[in-house]
Amino acid sequence: MSPELHINLANLEKNIHFFSGAIKKNVELSTVVKSDAYGLGITKLVPAMERYGIRSFFTATLSEAIKTRKYSPRAEIFTLNGFDFLRASLYKKFNITPVINSLPEVKKFIEIFQNTHKTAIQLNTGMNRLGLNKQIFFENIDIIGSLPLSLILSHLACADDINNKENIAQRDLFLELCKFMPNTRKSISASHGTLLGSEFHLDMVRPGVGIYGGIKNNGLRQVIQIKIPVLQNFVIDKDMQVGYNFTYKARRPMKVATLAMGYSDGLPRTLSNKGKLFCGNKSCPIIGRVSMDLVTVDISSLSEIPEYLNVFSPEYQVDDFAKDCQTISHEVLVNFGERVSRIYSE
Amino acid sequence: MSPELHINLANLEKNIHFFSGAIKKNVELSTVVKSDAYGLGITKLVPAMERYGIRSFFTATLSEAIKTRKYSPRAEIFTLNGFDFLRASLYKKFNITPVINSLPEVKKFIEIFQNTHKTAIQLNTGMNRLGLNKQIFFENIDIIGSLPLSLILSHLACADDINNKENIAQRDLFLELCKFMPNTRKSISASHGTLLGSEFHLDMVRPGVGIYGGIKNNGLRQVIQIKIPVLQNFVIDKDMQVGYNFTYKARRPMKVATLAMGYSDGLPRTLSNKGKLFCGNKSCPIIGRVSMDLVTVDISSLSEIPEYLNVFSPEYQVDDFAKDCQTISHEVLVNFGERVSRIYSE
Repeated sequence: MSPELHINLANLEKNIHFFSGAIKKNVELSTVVKSDAYGLGITKLVPAMERYGIRSFFTATLSEAIKTRKYSPRAEIFTLNGFDFLRASLYKKFNITPVINSLPEVKKFIEIFQNTHKTAIQLNTGMNRLGLNKQIFFENIDIIGSLPLSLILSHLACADDINNKENIAQRDLFLELCKFMPNTRKSISASHGTLLGSEFHLDMVRPGVGIYGGIKNNGLRQVIQIKIPVLQNFVIDKDMQVGYNFTYKARRPMKVATLAMGYSDGLPRTLSNKGKLFCGNKSCPIIGRVSMDLVTVDISSLSEIPEYLNVFSPEYQVDDFAKDCQTISHEVLVNFGERVSRIYSE
Repeated sequence: MSPELHINLANLEKNIHFFSGAIKKNVELSTVVKSDAYGLGITKLVPAMERYGIRSFFTATLSEAIKTRKYSPRAEIFTLNGFDFLRASLYKKFNITPVINSLPEVKKFIEIFQNTHKTAIQLNTGMNRLGLNKQIFFENIDIIGSLPLSLILSHLACADDINNKENIAQRDLFLELCKFMPNTRKSISASHGTLLGSEFHLDMVRPGVGIYGGIKNNGLRQVIQIKIPVLQNFVIDKDMQVGYNFTYKARRPMKVATLAMGYSDGLPRTLSNKGKLFCGNKSCPIIGRVSMDLVTVDISSLSEIPEYLNVFSPEYQVDDFAKDCQTISHEVLVNFGERVSRIYSE
């Protein structure tokens, strides 16, 4: 018995419509499907997103792009993590657009393809992670300008912090550099950047986590629910202890359930003695350490032994769960393990 | 370009020999291969462990057991997470031994198999996670005694805490209960329990994490190394910032490298501004936030730009890395993602 990750494609569609409704008609809505579509499954999500109107996808690696191509014969597919020149022939074979991030990659691309294959470039506007710096861009503007560019992009470091002036600074630098490539499409925003408003939309936005239900916003729906089967239940007496290293001691007699999900499945160990699971709206506190394959909860508040408990409730969404895990929605989503079966509903 | 997880099977073999050397000849050495052999891959590790003399394996779920059976036609395979009675026919078909944890499971097992299939039972000796309680055991000793039992087992909650009196209390209770099943093999110890000494070995020990290099011990070897390709490098000036939310600001000009591993690959976000990667023995501090697919490090101490950096060094092993991640080796091992290619050497 293993956990089930239920993915509501109707709500995924609503989230896509939310983003397409937030941008002007001449702005392209692309989506990010790296890390197996944030853990929800490229296999089902890429064809679904195509049905909902998406015409281009972003992955991190070439392997992910090739997998995406299998489920989308015609979309434009970009690889964010640079030009993997040792496997250059695969970009041609599968019609993948590399995002070039550095001058060595520019040179390798020209050497190998002699401009017979389209590409994108990423500019570093301050995040200092990937992309060409301003100085290198200007010093090599002729060679960069000669590339058959499909897109120029950059990435905002603080887009989730709406009043942060760095957002405007990054965008302004990006637009200053893009002036030298006036005929190429421009993109700087993922989910949070798109929510910053139209001056951040440019020619294309590329949301990821917001589409998958990882952002709390009145216009966005919850996309996932996890059902965890109850394996066993028992009553423990006052002063009995629970789980590894006996970090929990019962202050009263209580009903306990052990369920089939652990940190190997994406229920992180940080939730030990801290997280909760749900029976509808009723919460059941996690007691003791989360183990690799199991979690133990206090079900004293329930009148009947449930067959399963949920990870989320209408009032406790991915973002809330992430806060309890001391991280962000993105890390939560990509950590649901292989034993967790993905079940899709329209 | 993606990280490579290199698995040294020669050291895995040495670790198995370490455990077999620690037990008497009449004690069976089994191994735990749940969670895809702690993330290292059932496909390769199960046949390798058979070559090194292992004759039985423990998984958590029935699906894992069936996968294990594919790579080991003859071994005894136990499923720790109870009797999945809705799929009972698969236990017969693949010759899998369920570990029964509760009275409802005992009854279901007898109802379905009428004692024509062997089983194991788990006793709850205080961890209050899975297994039959003392009281239920005694109340149902006739029916339990009628099962075709291959093994009785329990699990220590505090085995990594060698002086904890709970270890002895759990073992003594276990032996007290086992007296009523004198002809059945007994097992209470995983890796740490085995290291507690021969009075914890009984008829079978079943190490997991220790075999995979997750325990620091003079007799145990490191089994894994991770090589992360450098995607890009650049020089940043004093006061420049790095990564999401600009949590890092350079105090001096520095050389920075961006590498192709992020929290989606098992380099947790808790390492932001805190962890390190290695070029041989030289450590390169992680600067800024770890992102989903990328990590940024300070390589100012290196004389040349490396092609890749390592996650571990001879002095910085899985257990050290886990401490920096604020968790334990087990969670580190099972979190290495699907994009991380597994490469095996003998």
